[in-house]
Amino acid sequence: SSAPAPIKATLFPGDGIGPEIAVSVKQVFQAAEVPIEWEEHYVGDQIDPRTQSFLTWESLESVRRNRVGLKGPMATPVGKGHRSLNLTLRKELNLYANVRPCYSLPGYKTRYDNVDLVTIRENTEGEYSGLEHQVVRGVVESLKIITRQASLRVAEYAFHFAKTHGRERVSAIHKANIMQKTDGLFLKCCREVAEKYPEITYEEVVIDNCCMMLVKNPALFDVLVMPNLYGDIISDLCAGLVGGLGLTASCNIGEAGIALAEAVHGSAPDIAGKNMANPTALLLSAVTMLRHLELYDKAERIQDAILNTIAEGKYRTADLGGSSSTTDFTKAICGHL
Amino acid sequence: SSAPAPIKATLFPGDGIGPEIAVSVKQVFQAAEVPIEWEEHYVGDQIDPRTQSFLTWESLESVRRNRVGLKGPMATPVGKGHRSLNLTLRKELNLYANVRPCYSLPGYKTRYDNVDLVTIRENTEGEYSGLEHQVVRGVVESLKIITRQASLRVAEYAFHFAKTHGRERVSAIHKANIMQKTDGLFLKCCREVAEKYPEITYEEVVIDNCCMMLVKNPALFDVLVMPNLYGDIISDLCAGLVGGLGLTASCNIGEAGIALAEAVHGSAPDIAGKNMANPTALLLSAVTMLRHLELYDKAERIQDAILNTIAEGKYRTADLGGSSSTTDFTKAICGHL
Ligand SMILES: CC(C)[C@H](C(=O)O)[C@@H](O)C(=O)O
Ligand SMILES: CC(C)[C@H](C(=O)O)[C@@H](O)C(=O)O
Repeated sequence: SSAPAPIKATLFPGDGIGPEIAVSVKQVFQAAEVPIEWEEHYVGDQIDPRTQSFLTWESLESVRRNRVGLKGPMATPVGKGHRSLNLTLRKELNLYANVRPCYSLPGYKTRYDNVDLVTIRENTEGEYSGLEHQVVRGVVESLKIITRQASLRVAEYAFHFAKTHGRERVSAIHKANIMQKTDGLFLKCCREVAEKYPEITYEEVVIDNCCMMLVKNPALFDVLVMPNLYGDIISDLCAGLVGGLGLTASCNIGEAGIALAEAVHGSAPDIAGKNMANPTALLLSAVTMLRHLELYDKAERIQDAILNTIAEGKYRTADLGGSSSTTDFTKAICGHL
Repeated sequence: SSAPAPIKATLFPGDGIGPEIAVSVKQVFQAAEVPIEWEEHYVGDQIDPRTQSFLTWESLESVRRNRVGLKGPMATPVGKGHRSLNLTLRKELNLYANVRPCYSLPGYKTRYDNVDLVTIRENTEGEYSGLEHQVVRGVVESLKIITRQASLRVAEYAFHFAKTHGRERVSAIHKANIMQKTDGLFLKCCREVAEKYPEITYEEVVIDNCCMMLVKNPALFDVLVMPNLYGDIISDLCAGLVGGLGLTASCNIGEAGIALAEAVHGSAPDIAGKNMANPTALLLSAVTMLRHLELYDKAERIQDAILNTIAEGKYRTADLGGSSSTTDFTKAICGHL
């Protein structure tokens, strides 16, 4: 009798604390007997002309082939003439939606205890077009681009996500009272998609009001979908409500079924190599990857083990006020499996 | 012996609850013997061709002449072919900076008890250019405009404000890692101005990170200065930290020394005329107007009376969980003068 062939997934351990927290994921996956075989890729030390960035062509090919990947923090190399690593990944792999589940962690106290929402950010256009120029000296402009295609695509993803994850409401976040044409088109696309999902409540919330509501009562929200820059802002705001980027998962969805999960926190060079880093964000991101692979049982088991370890409070890394090492925290999670 | 001639100020009571809360301001100012004579103006019921909006030319002339004004909430009239009232005021009066002090109110509990910051928003350009068009079907773009002139002007205001208000730090909020030219120019202008204020600490914070820091620990911030849209978002977020737009002041600064203070909350038509509205935001906005007029003693006295009334907790309007009428709350403030 032979075991089913393992699923191949690309792993970018990344820089700084990246490799340590990637080890943590590998250990937890092994303990949970997740049938995944990692293909590891590191950021190169020179620009790859085929990607115009420090990301190698081979590493991108690996994600394209495997369709799933996990990414640790990458330090942006200094110097000009290359593209940002994050933006290169989004562009080359057509990662059109950034999905961030955000919920209060049982036992980890912040000012909020009732957060349970998901932000879904359009990840390819809007204010991130890169189209900027000087009109005359002292006058510069940048172009925000909104397309029907990208707006429908992310709206479709948001409603489909809501439906398949037992969510009840989708809020489209916008500033169409000012940007009537661009954000107006985004809303129009959301409305079109909403029609196809009568079981999901649809609402539209102006971004300034949305931020006020989020800090007053985040329980008002369920799934939020929005253009690129608003998503950038609101997903970080929401992470802040429950403790920060060290505790929240992120997953990028691309066309052709690609999912690249990632820890969105920094590479923390000051504590790199010291066995002090908190692997939670990368672990929870890895869990979203498992869900994408429809390995729901494994995903639940691992997520429960992570949350129970944090809730128990006995093993916590320094950023959460504890004194556990990365390895002890990881062992505790494996013990909860 | 004759008293000094009173200072003339324009008053836009506005719509909905506007007239009631404007009465409250008039009563408190009278009780505090503020030497102000109000020139009242209402929003017209048809478009004034000279302003292309429902705001009358006479009302704008009144602000231009008096250089100071106070504005209640205005309901945007329905129908096309006219400009938004707020945007018309900003444009016609060249209101280039929106200043919002935001602090925890003693005795009024929210999740935060240590907020004491001021947001200063560039109010004339950026994403609010109104320049949008369809490139081809399904592709629309909008222009964000950043100019050296407007950026220097608001940066100057922010540093001058910090210095004259005993503030220690100015944080410029931006997304120059993505919008290198536009937000880059904004930052360049802030740096130039910062050089002239060596006694004020200057820092730059990326907007997504800023929002996360604000919800985690708003005490990290002092004065924040930023382009239009970021200011729109962050000033509402900050108001949310201390209780919402019903409790926070706002003042618009224009060229030629104009100051138009305003309550930025809505006109609340559902409770209009019921003597239930909370006049705090308009009162605190009126206080910023007094400071602009350098009537510091009156400003302090009135602000103390408002804050003491709220702190005491005996008279609170329904939005703050009390059952006082607008008039009783106002009387209580006058009693504290
Ligand atoms: C690093 C930066 C370019 C990036 C962004 O703005 O998208 C980051 O903030 C994020 O959210 O992934
Ligand atoms: C009503 C709207 C046009 C306005 C703005 O976006 O500036 C409002 O949100 C504000 O902050 O005054």
